[in-house]
Amino acid sequence: MNKRMIAYILGILLLCEAGLMLLPTIVSLVYGEAVVISFLATIVLLVATGVVLVAMKPKNKTIYARHGLVIVALGWILMSLFGALPFFFSGEIPNYLDALFEAVSGFTTTGSSILTDVEALSKSMLFWRSFTHWIGGMGVLVFMMAVLPLAGGGGDLHLMKAESPGPNVSKLVPRSSKTARILYEIYLALTVLEIFILLFGGMSLFESVTIAFGTAGTGGFGVLNSSIASYSTFCQSTITVFMILFGINFNIYFLLLCKKFKDALKSEEVWTYLAIMFSAIVVIALNIRDMFASFSEAFHHSAFQVSSVMTTTGFATADFNQWPELSRIIMLGVMCVGACAGSTGGGLKVSRLIILLKSARREFRRISHPRSVKIITFDGNRLSDDTIRNTFAYFFIYVMIFAASVLVVSLDNFDFTTTVTSVIATLNNIGPGLNMVGATGNYSEFSFLSKLVLISDMLLGRLEIFPLLFLFAPSKQKVKIFSKIRSKF
Amino acid sequence: MNKRMIAYILGILLLCEAGLMLLPTIVSLVYGEAVVISFLATIVLLVATGVVLVAMKPKNKTIYARHGLVIVALGWILMSLFGALPFFFSGEIPNYLDALFEAVSGFTTTGSSILTDVEALSKSMLFWRSFTHWIGGMGVLVFMMAVLPLAGGGGDLHLMKAESPGPNVSKLVPRSSKTARILYEIYLALTVLEIFILLFGGMSLFESVTIAFGTAGTGGFGVLNSSIASYSTFCQSTITVFMILFGINFNIYFLLLCKKFKDALKSEEVWTYLAIMFSAIVVIALNIRDMFASFSEAFHHSAFQVSSVMTTTGFATADFNQWPELSRIIMLGVMCVGACAGSTGGGLKVSRLIILLKSARREFRRISHPRSVKIITFDGNRLSDDTIRNTFAYFFIYVMIFAASVLVVSLDNFDFTTTVTSVIATLNNIGPGLNMVGATGNYSEFSFLSKLVLISDMLLGRLEIFPLLFLFAPSKQKVKIFSKIRSKF
Repeated sequence: MNKRMIAYILGILLLCEAGLMLLPTIVSLVYGEAVVISFLATIVLLVATGVVLVAMKPKNKTIYARHGLVIVALGWILMSLFGALPFFFSGEIPNYLDALFEAVSGFTTTGSSILTDVEALSKSMLFWRSFTHWIGGMGVLVFMMAVLPLAGGGGDLHLMKAESPGPNVSKLVPRSSKTARILYEIYLALTVLEIFILLFGGMSLFESVTIAFGTAGTGGFGVLNSSIASYSTFCQSTITVFMILFGINFNIYFLLLCKKFKDALKSEEVWTYLAIMFSAIVVIALNIRDMFASFSEAFHHSAFQVSSVMTTTGFATADFNQWPELSRIIMLGVMCVGACAGSTGGGLKVSRLIILLKSARREFRRISHPRSVKIITFDGNRLSDDTIRNTFAYFFIYVMIFAASVLVVSLDNFDFTTTVTSVIATLNNIGPGLNMVGATGNYSEFSFLSKLVLISDMLLGRLEIFPLLFLFAPSKQKVKIFSKIRSKF
Repeated sequence: MNKRMIAYILGILLLCEAGLMLLPTIVSLVYGEAVVISFLATIVLLVATGVVLVAMKPKNKTIYARHGLVIVALGWILMSLFGALPFFFSGEIPNYLDALFEAVSGFTTTGSSILTDVEALSKSMLFWRSFTHWIGGMGVLVFMMAVLPLAGGGGDLHLMKAESPGPNVSKLVPRSSKTARILYEIYLALTVLEIFILLFGGMSLFESVTIAFGTAGTGGFGVLNSSIASYSTFCQSTITVFMILFGINFNIYFLLLCKKFKDALKSEEVWTYLAIMFSAIVVIALNIRDMFASFSEAFHHSAFQVSSVMTTTGFATADFNQWPELSRIIMLGVMCVGACAGSTGGGLKVSRLIILLKSARREFRRISHPRSVKIITFDGNRLSDDTIRNTFAYFFIYVMIFAASVLVVSLDNFDFTTTVTSVIATLNNIGPGLNMVGATGNYSEFSFLSKLVLISDMLLGRLEIFPLLFLFAPSKQKVKIFSKIRSKF
């Protein structure tokens, strides 16, 4: 393993984080907050560490596929370890594990919080908290859409397809850095658009920016204890629309930019995503009708909550923990389904669900037609047996991780609902679950061990399991595939 | 579809049920109970219907693989529809849907009950209730071990392997009727052995027989409201041992009878089954230590409860609903794992879990070794890609059925734990879940719709999903494979 190269890349990452941290630093200066010291101290540490790592740049710049996954996993972990420092140094989150929980929750765009009083934080700290969502979302897009596909060609083609099935920007734009730049631009444009509309809706600049950050990364950190409940209906609706937009496969936006409208409209995944979302919204709206003054009000809140949890954002305008059981179960269901692949959302991903359903149906048909060789297609492309098998395995591992996590968290002896939904909410990067970790609750009371497990779940869910498991599963054999990346960046 | 042949076979099945129902009839005469009328009336209906169906015997006796599954599904449903009549006619379960729930729970060897007071039933009705477990268990053994493998050869080989991986009696004994007879003998011998030991332990004949019926079928219906809690420690320990024995793959007993001791000891599935069980028992015993006077007492009750739910029997000596969350979660976990394939137990089955784990691990390894062609073996035999894919698909469908069932049951608006565990307990054919359907609770308060769903789950779980889904998925193409069965019986 080319450790020096890995160190070099991580060093660059930390220097980037130092640069990004200048933003909250400026915010703290604008608001005249004493915590500016915490940001500056962290920046110093980031730069120091980054410089040391960058200095290890080797002559041989070859890295391999497996190491790409290691870099991603370590990168997220390192950024979180340092990203927790401002919270910790300022004393606003005095316990380091709690600060780490909040930072991981930020960068993995989960939005679960250990804070019992969000409004007690300084504005710059709240800004940093939300900014980690935006950074994390961007990181996910680039990872999923630009880095992974590069591992393609030859034997790794199945991995690319498994991780990002459907239309792929990188197939349309061969140079990976150009791909990354286009994604950033779409991401930034949508964020800025949301900020402007929220400003137009009467929201303050600070709130518009932080909420747009949380929407773009489908993260969910707000700046008020009531999350989004106190804002106007216009603003809530705006956020609903943008949450849905950020949950869509970004390849679609690229297709639209290239004026390939027909291809964009043919996306199975997006139609399925919208169909599931709309059905859930309608059923829940009918189910909670009596809790509101009118059906349109029930529909408004149903739409907000459903799009919030299905895109795995986690903002709230109503305490769905109080809703009837049917609605709560539907909410948990769409939590697990998640958003589209190639978006900043978490969960299993709609595309995987489609692949699993089609494959399962084919298996069922094989009972009566044992010799049938039915080919499964996705958006017109044939799905390889490798992709199907990989998707099934992913689903099984996902369920096993869920089961193991619930087992460990149960040691805290909280009620069944709290225990189970805390894992669902973190593994799927949503944020709030039910009962103690519901929309008006938080994760503060979990033990050290449980918080560690939930932090791991947030990372596993965000990185889609394999990179992180990879970190802990060393292998002697190397496959030389990643050398292409170096030449393209 | 050769409907006349299917009708003929179902007719024979009903006549068998009529014959079996003579036993509770005799019991009601022995105890001088008025309900003897209900049994006689049901026998008359069974014979009448059976004779009509048998008269439809066609000249062309060919039936196909797909129809074998239809016969099994319809058979279980028909036997339950009639088997519910004694409860209904006698008025001891005045609502027919409730009577059907209890009958399905019996034949599928689940053990979930809608009764609020078990002891209010007459002795012969309690006898019939427990006897349905014994009959159901026997039916499962024959289906899994003798009928399905016959569908093997040619294209259906993968189905045989998927349904009953591991050592297979039918491979050792070519004639299927001989296979069935050997299984009956082992099953009967173990049942009689348990009856004798319980009698020796001081239990009444009535209780020894009914409890042995419930153990053999891994069903769980008892004759007291306190289930097994009031019996002596010796009797409870006896039942523990026999529950474990009935959860073992019956092929192992056959191997032992053939003096193939080495092969029997090499069974991966049995060792894994015992390892999971023992680990769970120890961890739970430590977890509940403070609830009992001594560790050995805690161990005793942990052993009983764990073996009870893992074999999916469902007897209880302690209310595990009161245990700490860790123990409750472990109990739910082993509920889902279930017993060995080729036993009367339910759940996912240990062999499937092993296949899933090995396959998932291989997929994970392929990330670093994309061109590896690692072969997965099970008990020394190579697992085909078909079997693996089929097992993955089964797991996914199992989870989807669970999710859909929870969704419908949630309409009743009971708490999350009750809703979720009611489905876990029926789909895995265990009996008791947690909270309202816990060891001291029952299923009486569910709505008509929920009871229908839970009845379906019991059937789906028992028949291992595919036969029942098959009933509702017609297909035009037929595959001629089952003709062999006719010639052998």
